[in-house]
Amino acid sequence: MDAVYLDHNATTPLDPRVREAMLPWLGGRHGNPSSLHAFGQGARNAVEEARERVAVLLGARPAEIVFTASGTEANNAVLFDLAFSPSEDRTPKRVVTSGFEHPSVREAANRLGERGFQIERILPRGGTVDADEMIAALAPGPDRPATSLAALMLANNELGTIQPVAQVARAARAYGVPVLCDAVQAVGKIPVSVADLDVDALVLGGHKFHGPLGAAALWLRKGFDLHGYLVGGSQERRRRAGTENVPAIVGLGKAAEIAAGELSERHRHLAGLRDRIERGISEIPEARVHATDRPRLPNTTHIAFSGVEGEALLIRLDLAGFAVSTGSACSSGTVEPSKGMLAAGFSPEEALSSLRVSVGMTNTEAEIDAFLAALPREVEALRRFAPVPVSR
Amino acid sequence: MDAVYLDHNATTPLDPRVREAMLPWLGGRHGNPSSLHAFGQGARNAVEEARERVAVLLGARPAEIVFTASGTEANNAVLFDLAFSPSEDRTPKRVVTSGFEHPSVREAANRLGERGFQIERILPRGGTVDADEMIAALAPGPDRPATSLAALMLANNELGTIQPVAQVARAARAYGVPVLCDAVQAVGKIPVSVADLDVDALVLGGHKFHGPLGAAALWLRKGFDLHGYLVGGSQERRRRAGTENVPAIVGLGKAAEIAAGELSERHRHLAGLRDRIERGISEIPEARVHATDRPRLPNTTHIAFSGVEGEALLIRLDLAGFAVSTGSACSSGTVEPSKGMLAAGFSPEEALSSLRVSVGMTNTEAEIDAFLAALPREVEALRRFAPVPVSR
Repeated sequence: MDAVYLDHNATTPLDPRVREAMLPWLGGRHGNPSSLHAFGQGARNAVEEARERVAVLLGARPAEIVFTASGTEANNAVLFDLAFSPSEDRTPKRVVTSGFEHPSVREAANRLGERGFQIERILPRGGTVDADEMIAALAPGPDRPATSLAALMLANNELGTIQPVAQVARAARAYGVPVLCDAVQAVGKIPVSVADLDVDALVLGGHKFHGPLGAAALWLRKGFDLHGYLVGGSQERRRRAGTENVPAIVGLGKAAEIAAGELSERHRHLAGLRDRIERGISEIPEARVHATDRPRLPNTTHIAFSGVEGEALLIRLDLAGFAVSTGSACSSGTVEPSKGMLAAGFSPEEALSSLRVSVGMTNTEAEIDAFLAALPREVEALRRFAPVPVSR
Repeated sequence: MDAVYLDHNATTPLDPRVREAMLPWLGGRHGNPSSLHAFGQGARNAVEEARERVAVLLGARPAEIVFTASGTEANNAVLFDLAFSPSEDRTPKRVVTSGFEHPSVREAANRLGERGFQIERILPRGGTVDADEMIAALAPGPDRPATSLAALMLANNELGTIQPVAQVARAARAYGVPVLCDAVQAVGKIPVSVADLDVDALVLGGHKFHGPLGAAALWLRKGFDLHGYLVGGSQERRRRAGTENVPAIVGLGKAAEIAAGELSERHRHLAGLRDRIERGISEIPEARVHATDRPRLPNTTHIAFSGVEGEALLIRLDLAGFAVSTGSACSSGTVEPSKGMLAAGFSPEEALSSLRVSVGMTNTEAEIDAFLAALPREVEALRRFAPVPVSR
C-alpha cells in the first residue's frame, strides 16, 4: 500500500476532474483577463464562469465573490481593512472573535490590537464558542468602544467542531456589527449557505476540498465593501488588484461545482470513514476522542493518547506510511501545545498528546483498516519506550 | 495560421518545460509544506528548490527570496509596509518614485499619500527618468521630510524603456534611502542582477516570462525586512503568511532556471523579431516607433499611428487574428489615454493613437510577416473610414 494520507485539513490532493479543467490553461490557452483581445476575453470568461460556480455553492450572487490567492489573504483583507477604512471616525474600535481562530485571523487581530483596537476573545470551552457569551461581548456597552467586526470560524481546523455562526450573526445584525466567517475548513464538507449564516463576509479556500492551491474566495455581502487591500489594477471590481490566477480560479470553480453536486454523498463517505476510525480507536486503552458530544465536521477526528507525545507519534506513523497531524508547533527545538486546544480548555499535557486525523474523498476503508492496525502498535511502543507524564 | 499573440507584456504562454515541472504537483504529488510528514516535506523541498533557482537567476541568496502570489502583491507589500512599520518615529515621510510606475506601485503610493506621506513623482521625459533629477528628489533637504523609500521600475511595461536603477540606487544608498525595483517586465528578458542594481527590494512575476500565473517573487536584501503584510502562519520566514502555492512556485523555479540558461539566446530571438517588426513599420506612412533612441527591452515596440485610434486598431487587428495592446484604459465608455504615456511627455492624441506590440519566445518570423501584412491594411482602413484628429 502507498503511504496513506490522513491530513486533509492541511491540504487535499487535487480532484482529477479539477485537474482536467485546469490543464487547458496550463498549455494551449492563455491570456490576461484584463486584455481586450480574444485571448484576454477567453480568460475573462473562464474566470467569470468559475465565479458563478463558487456563487452557486454558497447560494450567493457572482458579483459578491472576490477571488484571492489564499484563505489567509482573504481573512487578512477583511480585518486589515478596518485599519484602512476611510470612515469619518478613525478611532480604533473593538473586534470580538473566538479564542481558537485560524492564525490568519488571530494574528491579524493582534496587529489591530497593536494599533489601538480592543480585541476580545471568547474561549471555546470544550471546542465550541458559547453564542450568548459572544453576543454579549459584541453588544454595545458603556464601558467599551463600538464593535467594528465579529470574526467566528464555521468549523475549527483541529477539533472539527462547528461554531454557532448563524446565532451570533443574527444578534450581531441587530447591533449593526458585521460578521466575518472563516469557513475554510467547512466548505466542501458540510452545506454552507451565506443566506442561512447571515454573515457579511465569508472565506473559503480551494485546496481544502480537492481544489487547487493558489485560489480562494472571499464572499462579501453587497454593501460590505473592502476599501482596497491589494491595490493597482482594477481586477475583481477594484476589490483586489493583481492579474487573476486563471488556471487556479478555473480549478476552484470546478471544485465548487463538484462539491455542490456531491455534498451529501461526500458527507456519507467522510463520516463513514471517520466513524470507522473512531470505532477502532475506542479499542485502544487510554485513548480519548474529543468533542464527540457536539456538532463536528464529518472528516475530522481529534484524539488524545495519554502518556504519548503527539509529535513523536506523528513521526512514527509517518515512518510507517501514515500522514497525520498534531496542532502543536515545533519552534526552536521545543514543542509548544496548540494555542487553540489550550483556548478550548484542554491542559497542555492533553494538547501535546493529541493527534488530528482528517480524511478525504480519496481515502478507502482498506486504508483506514491499515491505519487502525498500525496505530495501537505505535502508541504502545511510545508508551513503553518514551512515556510522557500524564495529568488527569 | 492560428491567432497570433503579440501581447507578451500582459502575460505569456507557459513554457512546456515549466508545465512538465508543475504537472506532478497537480496529480500524484501533494502536501502542505508546513506539515511534518513525508507529504509535507516533499512539498517543502520542492518549494526550496524553486527558491534556489530564482536566487540563481538574480544572483541572490535563497533566504532573501519571498514567494508571493503576484507582482502586485509584492510591490504593495513593500510600500504598505512603510505605513505598518513599527519604527520609533511613526511620522509619515516621503516616497520618491517615477511618474509611470505600474499601477500596483502608483496606487499604493497614492494610499500612502492619503495617510500623510509626501509622494514625489519624477516625470520620465521621452520614456526615461533622469537619474540626477530622481537623486536630487530623494536627497535630504531642509524643506522636506526624510525619504523612506525610492521606487523605480527596471523596464517600463508600455515603452519598454530601461530606467537608470543602478545609478539612482548608488546615490540612494549614500543617503540611506532604500530602493524598491519593480523588475516584473525585465526579468527573463534582460540580465537582472541584484548585486549590480544594488537595490534593497526587487520584484519579478512568473507569468511575464513563460512561467505560471500565481507565483511571483520578492527579493529582499538581508536586513531590509517586512514587518508582516500577510500575517498568520509562519511561512516564508514569517515574511508572508498563507499556504505556499506549490505547483506555481515549482513552475516559477523552472521558468527561472530556463531563463538563466537561455538569456542570451532569448535576447537574440526577441530582438530579431522586434527589429523585423520595426523595419516593417518604417514602411507605413505616418507611423512612429517610440523611444528607439534609448535602452529598451528586446521584445517591446510602441508605435503611434497618426490619425488612428489605438483601441479601434486593436479591435480590428483582433478580428484579423492578431492580439496586441494599447496602454489606454476604457472606463465608463470613454477611452482614457495611458497615464504613463502622458507622464513620459506624449500628448493625449499620441497616447491614444498608440499600439504596444510585445513578442515572446513562441513567436516566429512567419507570424511577424503575417502581422506586417495585415497591419498597414487595418491602419489604412481606419484612416479612411474613422479618422481621428492629429495634433503635431
